[in-house]
Amino acid sequence: MDIVLIGSGNVATHLGNSLQAAGHRIVQVYSRTKAHADALASVLQSQPSTTDELSELHKHADIYLIAVSDRAIGSVISALPSGIQGIVAHTSGSTPIAVFENYPDPHGVFYPVQTFSIAKSVDFAQVPIALEASSEQTYETLAQLGNTLSNRVFACDSKQRLAIHIAAVFACNFTNYLYAIGEDVLQAEGLDFDLIRPLIQETADKIQQHSPNRVQTGPAHRNDQVIVQRHIDYLANKDQAQLKELYALISSLITQKAL
Amino acid sequence: MDIVLIGSGNVATHLGNSLQAAGHRIVQVYSRTKAHADALASVLQSQPSTTDELSELHKHADIYLIAVSDRAIGSVISALPSGIQGIVAHTSGSTPIAVFENYPDPHGVFYPVQTFSIAKSVDFAQVPIALEASSEQTYETLAQLGNTLSNRVFACDSKQRLAIHIAAVFACNFTNYLYAIGEDVLQAEGLDFDLIRPLIQETADKIQQHSPNRVQTGPAHRNDQVIVQRHIDYLANKDQAQLKELYALISSLITQKAL
Repeated sequence: MDIVLIGSGNVATHLGNSLQAAGHRIVQVYSRTKAHADALASVLQSQPSTTDELSELHKHADIYLIAVSDRAIGSVISALPSGIQGIVAHTSGSTPIAVFENYPDPHGVFYPVQTFSIAKSVDFAQVPIALEASSEQTYETLAQLGNTLSNRVFACDSKQRLAIHIAAVFACNFTNYLYAIGEDVLQAEGLDFDLIRPLIQETADKIQQHSPNRVQTGPAHRNDQVIVQRHIDYLANKDQAQLKELYALISSLITQKAL
Repeated sequence: MDIVLIGSGNVATHLGNSLQAAGHRIVQVYSRTKAHADALASVLQSQPSTTDELSELHKHADIYLIAVSDRAIGSVISALPSGIQGIVAHTSGSTPIAVFENYPDPHGVFYPVQTFSIAKSVDFAQVPIALEASSEQTYETLAQLGNTLSNRVFACDSKQRLAIHIAAVFACNFTNYLYAIGEDVLQAEGLDFDLIRPLIQETADKIQQHSPNRVQTGPAHRNDQVIVQRHIDYLANKDQAQLKELYALISSLITQKAL
């Protein structure tokens, strides 16, 4: 299919590369910063045209993928030129399909459930892709596209998609923040983050086969209040009042759940 | 070496199996519940004797590893019979070596930085083992033992070890709890946890090469307050007041760190 990428960040870049590898043709890249559009276009074999004006979008591509920050999606849609023939789809977890309420059919949502960073390539085959569309026919076309990338394309409504994004924020973004706290706590004692890398790997590996609700461990889960308090005291002495609060809150939630 | 295991839970079981595989001989297993000691002894080739009386411990083993819950370590040490010849070492992250203050040399700490569960075997070679000892000679013997299990044996004092355990609680126990929240949020919408397993794997894989402080992503990191608020509203509607509080706290900490 011929695809226009609207956006030039991590999601647009990973999608562009993966769609190209799957045999599609990226025909145009939009970014509000022309140099960013040029940078992404330069790594794509199809040599797409670039623009920083939405009014200059091609009219006859098959799919227009909006991969911009959530807060910009509405204004991008409002500024799309009339007469676009293809499907316009955004790629956001937390933006409902209703963001298209003033935009005609065909439109939809194409949400890959994964975290993308420039530093690391991603195997799209295992990435679930959540779809929603303005009509059954539009859904089928988005599903065709999705199936060329992934084995796990599925339909879900906007509320379910929001739940997936929230679950992903807890299990990915917040988890990485806990890793970062671990790194900070170790560094404050002159210790290397490498000490807990195997533990992090083991923790993530374990839930690939098991339910995390069934493999919870640790002092709070055992309701070992002596250790919980020892840890809270340590964090308090470190003048890290907010980490102390976070430790206490999560520990009490884990203990409540275990009882 | 000849080893006595004091304890029969996850840590004792994993240590017993790994020490046996490394060529050591488990000569005795103590548990306050005799049946638990028997169960662990029955899977060890050396057919160790078992007891639920600390007064019946062999006197002439090389190493006595205390792998009981943190709160029981002090009372186990107090109840050890006099005349033990070998090194007595506990395996806890958060219990200082001072717990041995009324117990003579040789004693120490042998703390494997890993999470152990019955469900899953662990490759000890990559597990860091933190050592502390009552004398240099005792340290050398514990290091000899550690080196037969792991490539990553190192010295650290009780305060550093506490920091390692706190870092591990954040990065492992608390992380697993965030996975469990993800599972709960998905289940409430009729969705499967499998949807975010690839994301969890990717998040853990990424920090094997990178610093988590440098690869943070997500709405809070971008200071995207519209999405953060949308997620908080969703959790509030779900009558999950504490999850809402947790979401808000972690998001504000991430945003502060990013600014």
